[in-house]
Amino acid sequence: MKVGIIGATGYAGAELLRLLLTHPNVTVSAISSVSFEHQNIQDVYPNFAQTCNMVLCDEDTAIQKSDVIFASLPHGLSELIAEKCVEQNKYLIDLGADFRLTDPKDYEEWYQLSYQKPELHELSAYIIPELHRKLADNIKIIANPGCYPTSISLGLAPIIQTGKVDCNSIIIDSKSGVTGAGRGLSQTTHYPDCNEAFSPYKVASHRHTPEIEQTLSGLAGQNCTVTFVPHLLPVNRGIVSTMYLNLTEPMALEEIHSLYRKFYQTEKFVRVLPKGTTANLKNVKYSNYCDISLHLDPRTNRLIVVSTIDNMVKGAAGQAIQNMNLLMGIPEDTGLDFIPPAF
Amino acid sequence: MKVGIIGATGYAGAELLRLLLTHPNVTVSAISSVSFEHQNIQDVYPNFAQTCNMVLCDEDTAIQKSDVIFASLPHGLSELIAEKCVEQNKYLIDLGADFRLTDPKDYEEWYQLSYQKPELHELSAYIIPELHRKLADNIKIIANPGCYPTSISLGLAPIIQTGKVDCNSIIIDSKSGVTGAGRGLSQTTHYPDCNEAFSPYKVASHRHTPEIEQTLSGLAGQNCTVTFVPHLLPVNRGIVSTMYLNLTEPMALEEIHSLYRKFYQTEKFVRVLPKGTTANLKNVKYSNYCDISLHLDPRTNRLIVVSTIDNMVKGAAGQAIQNMNLLMGIPEDTGLDFIPPAF
Amino acid sequence: MKVGIIGATGYAGAELLRLLLTHPNVTVSAISSVSFEHQNIQDVYPNFAQTCNMVLCDEDTAIQKSDVIFASLPHGLSELIAEKCVEQNKYLIDLGADFRLTDPKDYEEWYQLSYQKPELHELSAYIIPELHRKLADNIKIIANPGCYPTSISLGLAPIIQTGKVDCNSIIIDSKSGVTGAGRGLSQTTHYPDCNEAFSPYKVASHRHTPEIEQTLSGLAGQNCTVTFVPHLLPVNRGIVSTMYLNLTEPMALEEIHSLYRKFYQTEKFVRVLPKGTTANLKNVKYSNYCDISLHLDPRTNRLIVVSTIDNMVKGAAGQAIQNMNLLMGIPEDTGLDFIPPAF
Amino acid sequence: MKVGIIGATGYAGAELLRLLLTHPNVTVSAISSVSFEHQNIQDVYPNFAQTCNMVLCDEDTAIQKSDVIFASLPHGLSELIAEKCVEQNKYLIDLGADFRLTDPKDYEEWYQLSYQKPELHELSAYIIPELHRKLADNIKIIANPGCYPTSISLGLAPIIQTGKVDCNSIIIDSKSGVTGAGRGLSQTTHYPDCNEAFSPYKVASHRHTPEIEQTLSGLAGQNCTVTFVPHLLPVNRGIVSTMYLNLTEPMALEEIHSLYRKFYQTEKFVRVLPKGTTANLKNVKYSNYCDISLHLDPRTNRLIVVSTIDNMVKGAAGQAIQNMNLLMGIPEDTGLDFIPPAF
Repeated sequence: MKVGIIGATGYAGAELLRLLLTHPNVTVSAISSVSFEHQNIQDVYPNFAQTCNMVLCDEDTAIQKSDVIFASLPHGLSELIAEKCVEQNKYLIDLGADFRLTDPKDYEEWYQLSYQKPELHELSAYIIPELHRKLADNIKIIANPGCYPTSISLGLAPIIQTGKVDCNSIIIDSKSGVTGAGRGLSQTTHYPDCNEAFSPYKVASHRHTPEIEQTLSGLAGQNCTVTFVPHLLPVNRGIVSTMYLNLTEPMALEEIHSLYRKFYQTEKFVRVLPKGTTANLKNVKYSNYCDISLHLDPRTNRLIVVSTIDNMVKGAAGQAIQNMNLLMGIPEDTGLDFIPPAF
Repeated sequence: MKVGIIGATGYAGAELLRLLLTHPNVTVSAISSVSFEHQNIQDVYPNFAQTCNMVLCDEDTAIQKSDVIFASLPHGLSELIAEKCVEQNKYLIDLGADFRLTDPKDYEEWYQLSYQKPELHELSAYIIPELHRKLADNIKIIANPGCYPTSISLGLAPIIQTGKVDCNSIIIDSKSGVTGAGRGLSQTTHYPDCNEAFSPYKVASHRHTPEIEQTLSGLAGQNCTVTFVPHLLPVNRGIVSTMYLNLTEPMALEEIHSLYRKFYQTEKFVRVLPKGTTANLKNVKYSNYCDISLHLDPRTNRLIVVSTIDNMVKGAAGQAIQNMNLLMGIPEDTGLDFIPPAF
Repeated sequence: MKVGIIGATGYAGAELLRLLLTHPNVTVSAISSVSFEHQNIQDVYPNFAQTCNMVLCDEDTAIQKSDVIFASLPHGLSELIAEKCVEQNKYLIDLGADFRLTDPKDYEEWYQLSYQKPELHELSAYIIPELHRKLADNIKIIANPGCYPTSISLGLAPIIQTGKVDCNSIIIDSKSGVTGAGRGLSQTTHYPDCNEAFSPYKVASHRHTPEIEQTLSGLAGQNCTVTFVPHLLPVNRGIVSTMYLNLTEPMALEEIHSLYRKFYQTEKFVRVLPKGTTANLKNVKYSNYCDISLHLDPRTNRLIVVSTIDNMVKGAAGQAIQNMNLLMGIPEDTGLDFIPPAF
Repeated sequence: MKVGIIGATGYAGAELLRLLLTHPNVTVSAISSVSFEHQNIQDVYPNFAQTCNMVLCDEDTAIQKSDVIFASLPHGLSELIAEKCVEQNKYLIDLGADFRLTDPKDYEEWYQLSYQKPELHELSAYIIPELHRKLADNIKIIANPGCYPTSISLGLAPIIQTGKVDCNSIIIDSKSGVTGAGRGLSQTTHYPDCNEAFSPYKVASHRHTPEIEQTLSGLAGQNCTVTFVPHLLPVNRGIVSTMYLNLTEPMALEEIHSLYRKFYQTEKFVRVLPKGTTANLKNVKYSNYCDISLHLDPRTNRLIVVSTIDNMVKGAAGQAIQNMNLLMGIPEDTGLDFIPPAF
């Protein structure tokens, strides 16, 4: 299978390239970039020396040369790519935001753009494999989930689908490593401004909010409105989401634990941690795992779920490959079975 | 005025020493340490070369040589020191936990120890100067607040004293730099285990919880039960508390801003940030400031308060000196008017 | 092939385990630890959840269960293990220092211990595969090189074997990430003491010095006495060695480049970087690569070689596996062909 | 005394502002910036909230309003400012490179520009106070030294002025925190590219080289040609220079120590560390100190000097103020006597 990467010089694109180069079932046939077209990838990312000697091409070439196309671009650019892919009968896995929201009004409200090709959206599906594994036959486009929504949805799915959660009580305090902000330069991510610093950003106004609510509402069977506050964490990789919610009826921690273990018992990439331990992003770095720890505040009866992923792997490139595997009908963990390092 | 530091080789002790050495109204007359007695402080902390040439003594010597004693010790040791100070008619500023909780049962429940000398507690007061400035005449012992409670109480005081907060809705997600864990070695604070890592700890079970509730309940005039989750942040210094609460009646952000600005308008060390900006710990590092930013989630009507301090200054040594200044009747900012560096 | 790890809970041991678990030709049959015997490895290293469920055993069991034994222990303990391995006709790959120095006097001088079993040393070989690939038939024990010596020897080999280096002019300024200090706790590696800090240590007295000189002298065909100064770098992983030397006759940078490219042209794991670029540890992290950049100071005619490796992979576990592959006659890069991440 | 800062929004400018605001003998009368003119400094640097409410003006206004002008600008811009200052009979302390090199050819070679106003250079002096304290009467312009040259010159001065150093043997391996690269954005200083990374840069070609050689040659009384290699260190602040040199006659470490102690015995800001200890940048951060440790490699008889400063204080703003104090005839440590924090 030939795969191409559009936007290969962004962080998610570079991570896709790294992972796809060692995937046993695929050949990377093309990588494209607007900013670095005609340059060798090694000139942009010297880590690829002696492992990838490809020259960056344009988008159309990337599509032509590939069976499956991964696109990792700013929002607003994916419908055009999707159209070309569909015309050429190819699959698109879109790491951007343009196919994630099922309600066009949400897209308009949060992205200030509107869908131009509604018919394409009927060929697309938003897939967190552990939650939305059953693909309709006509799917040609996969909307790969955002990093925050992945950590949050996996962390809350088992409890929220019980119907025993007060859906308006959910508070999500997330912290993301700086790769989440991408390769583009900004004062916020300038080393001396970012190191030994910590702050929330886009407080209760981050664009991942409707995506989070869409997934949670779908699981709950009712509308969920969450408060979501992301923070910039001075580490390279990883997201930790600390989530607070009220249960509508009392449950023992033991019971919740069983629920989670059962929910994820056949999942390779979700690890429900033993009672008494706490999820730490260091244990999932450079892997496709999501670690979840569960805590009950005995004084307020609030459930606290801590969920952590590597934002560049399970939160982006790794999940995209997992989705490709799913789409192609090969084992989901193919090319993704790396063990997180201890340090 | 002669001041002594008991526990001068812990992190808070060393920070006290640094700040007191340049305080214009005091002379550091003695520093004590159990672990490093008879050693020169420079052998433990080489940063003091050419600025402090003192030898560490024992606790009794430190008390005898001083008018005001700062104690920075593990809990359970301060009553004995306090007794000696009171007998010798000296003032004690205790940075430990032994005089913070007014209800002995709270101390028993959270520290598994009980007060041995109740009469001493009548001579003590828990003081965050901005909130509890009026000292009773008989006070000999000041319970210096914990780092988390300081950031939280200053952040919530203006809104909670309005009575318009649902006192059972308060969720506090705090993140602390690693100096908060002290100088003692542990696997958690071993560099490779702590760097590029992030995790909550003592989820909903941290000992600062009753102290937080004591202050908030006092301000609210009713019982507050909070969910408090601290996290270990891979930076040296600083605490950020992100706090979520429901208002019992709608308020505009503008109104809340005015309330905060008014509440703190004469305070040197509390900065209510302009609307649209967000508190960042980098702006308070190495200073006695507390920065507060206010945010309203328009979709849930939840108030989000972000409060940040330097855990070693406003959260420990700086506030202790502010309390000493208060006790001694000199301007509260004496010796504390350093401007935080930009980086 | 069954492999065992003695000292599996040290940092190098844990990295060995991670890499060996995905090696296609081996099965990890036993892992041992004195400190954590009878515990599950996941309780010590939660990153292994769902990927390794082994319980730590004792040393003898580890040897019995395995064909190849990796030992990663403090110096002074490996001869005994080696003796047992040889008696049971098993191979030992020793990541410690006990078999590295060929001259027993060097061992005595630098480690204050003496070899007890000289006959074992005749069955051992010190192997940096790129430099010492030809194994004698009787070799049962491989002395896996130290992290600093690996970066240094690979960086200097091509030029030093020309005989055109002033062997007494070599100055090596190395910087190592904190994992190099191991898992054991110390004030130096306590996060707040180590973060935002930088310092040399063991200036001109580090125990890797005789090992460096042994390799360089062997390559040069004459005695080399070097000045070696290591520094502790506030990152988790990686070594950068900046090396300065005088040439005994002028050479153009172009010529030196050709020499290096030719020397390493068939090597998978050494990358001689293009002229004008500079080796950076970030490009080799989590990989078995050694990146080398070459620079000539036109004003002093001094050659400057910059060499970087991941201290835990090429500097420890990765090279040990490369040595195992060599010993077993399988392709040297088996199980080691991971691409370094870009970030 | 009224002081102004031109280039107040660069890192050195912001640090100057912070330090000058608490200097007892001066009033900051004006701060200028091209990029942020008319904005409040707090909008650029929120750390100044409640401590400085000044609006950034233009360069000419800054000069007019001030008695002493600090300029912190890219090279090539200072002659014009100096001309205006001299015309208006004001003092200039220039933190840039335009007045540092006494030989115009050096400036041309290393900066590709030539001096336009040679007469101004006769009114200027390059001053590291500890080495060049005696000011000629006509001096109106002080060339404030570069950060690397300060650490290096202070570290080598005592030994080099003995005449016992082989002046062509000096190798300087320096490591600088990221603030040294300034506030301007670049890929190299983008957090994910800079964190967990380490590399030399401008190997043997950094513009501070002629400045270093100018000072060392002046002290030695003969030409010194050094090899100088800077590295980018993933910390915010601080420089460590590890320096290697051959002595032309053997000296005991004891003797060298005495020499250094004597040389700096009356200096407030230079600390010659006790034998057996090693300079660490953490002990000088946020202070004007330079810490020096001395080491002899007994096997090569090479002297190794380790020198560390805070690049933004002793390496820039602090030394500029020390120079102002010197120029104004007030005690050199006025406004600079802060003790470095332990962490």
